[in-house]
Amino acid sequence: MSGQSGTGSHAAPAAAVGSGVIDLLGLLAYARLVAFFRLAGDAELAPTLASKGELADLAAAEHANYRRLHDRLAELGVEPEAAMRPFVAPLDAWHARTEPQSWLESLVKAYVGEGIAGDFYGKLAEVCDRRTHELVRDTLVESGRAEFVAAQVRRAIGEDPRLAGRLALWARRLVGEALSQAQSVAASRPDLAALLGSGARARDAEVGSAEDAAAAADPAQAADATSADLATVSRMFAELTEAHAARLEAMGLST
Amino acid sequence: MSGQSGTGSHAAPAAAVGSGVIDLLGLLAYARLVAFFRLAGDAELAPTLASKGELADLAAAEHANYRRLHDRLAELGVEPEAAMRPFVAPLDAWHARTEPQSWLESLVKAYVGEGIAGDFYGKLAEVCDRRTHELVRDTLVESGRAEFVAAQVRRAIGEDPRLAGRLALWARRLVGEALSQAQSVAASRPDLAALLGSGARARDAEVGSAEDAAAAADPAQAADATSADLATVSRMFAELTEAHAARLEAMGLST
Repeated sequence: MSGQSGTGSHAAPAAAVGSGVIDLLGLLAYARLVAFFRLAGDAELAPTLASKGELADLAAAEHANYRRLHDRLAELGVEPEAAMRPFVAPLDAWHARTEPQSWLESLVKAYVGEGIAGDFYGKLAEVCDRRTHELVRDTLVESGRAEFVAAQVRRAIGEDPRLAGRLALWARRLVGEALSQAQSVAASRPDLAALLGSGARARDAEVGSAEDAAAAADPAQAADATSADLATVSRMFAELTEAHAARLEAMGLST
Repeated sequence: MSGQSGTGSHAAPAAAVGSGVIDLLGLLAYARLVAFFRLAGDAELAPTLASKGELADLAAAEHANYRRLHDRLAELGVEPEAAMRPFVAPLDAWHARTEPQSWLESLVKAYVGEGIAGDFYGKLAEVCDRRTHELVRDTLVESGRAEFVAAQVRRAIGEDPRLAGRLALWARRLVGEALSQAQSVAASRPDLAALLGSGARARDAEVGSAEDAAAAADPAQAADATSADLATVSRMFAELTEAHAARLEAMGLST
């Protein structure tokens, strides 16, 4: 497997993987660090000592994910902070544009945001080398958070049904802003977009095995992000919104 | 050893330790949870990705400390949140009265606040049963944080010597507010004050071994917090300020 991920001919550092994979790990590391900050902040504002503790546990789990991704980048000979840096602005912009105004909004944001980001990273990881795939998959394990959040939102809506419409609107805005930032990332990081595009093509061609998908994501190809890649990426984003609809239903929100 | 900590005759829950010890564990658990929130917030505001990551590591270590204290309370048959609750108001008040106005102030607060609190908890732990003593001591290990902070403050003062006076004043205020809240806790939690008082008496009498100190902290005595205990506690606070002076010097601040 690892041979298929190659070293590529492009600007990747002294790493055994292509620069699209480095981008993915850097993006994910920063995303986990920011998720840690968000969850720690949510924990501080949680209404009871018990819920403060539970959210602090979730925050600590995100820190552990960040640390694993960070250390994997270092192990690949890449300066982790350099790999994370291109994704600071778009992720910070997403958070700045979606600042929750209430405890419920922050719960919905955690659920919807982490959900759609998780689907996105999961699709990307499928076309990476096995070690990256496993690392990304492990750091996406949500360990009960989704159910914790969905149950709290359902209960709140049960107590005040007027909340449903406002929170559904909020969820729609979260996804719109997420797709907008993701498009901007895809446009500015051609290797990452090519990796994503190749994965989508592999699926479109109904290539079944992970090995074939990885071959389709050959980094020699990955250097050329084309407008075709960007179009493929857009189609993939459309697919992501289907899983999003399922999450809304789990919270008792209509789409 | 554990026999000496006894079960006491007073209102302790189904626990193998006295209620002064439960108070100590509850106080410490909430203090670690709040330290986690503070450090996570500081990490988010840190000026570089690398320092964000380092402070996030420290925050995660505080969460692990919180989790151990929390789980020890549960193991003792005490509801952890109930044990923590009496200390929410004084600790929150301390933090509210000492809100840092800059990155440097938050560093000094972390160093001075954690330092004096650590000395205080350490003195308390000395008179507890061995298991509590070890647990408290383990969760106070600072693992390089002090040096990290002191070095940053020294560098900043080196670059702008006018900072020294302002930060020294800030450190003085931090200690004043800490002692004020600690006095209030000692007055409202007689078992905790008695535990502290008995430990101070044991030291005053130059009782050398931890066993003797633990015997002096017999929970049968610990139920009676007297004004003598409170006076002893005040003397101990005076001792704490000596270690504080050493920390100020390490940061390049005069006392």
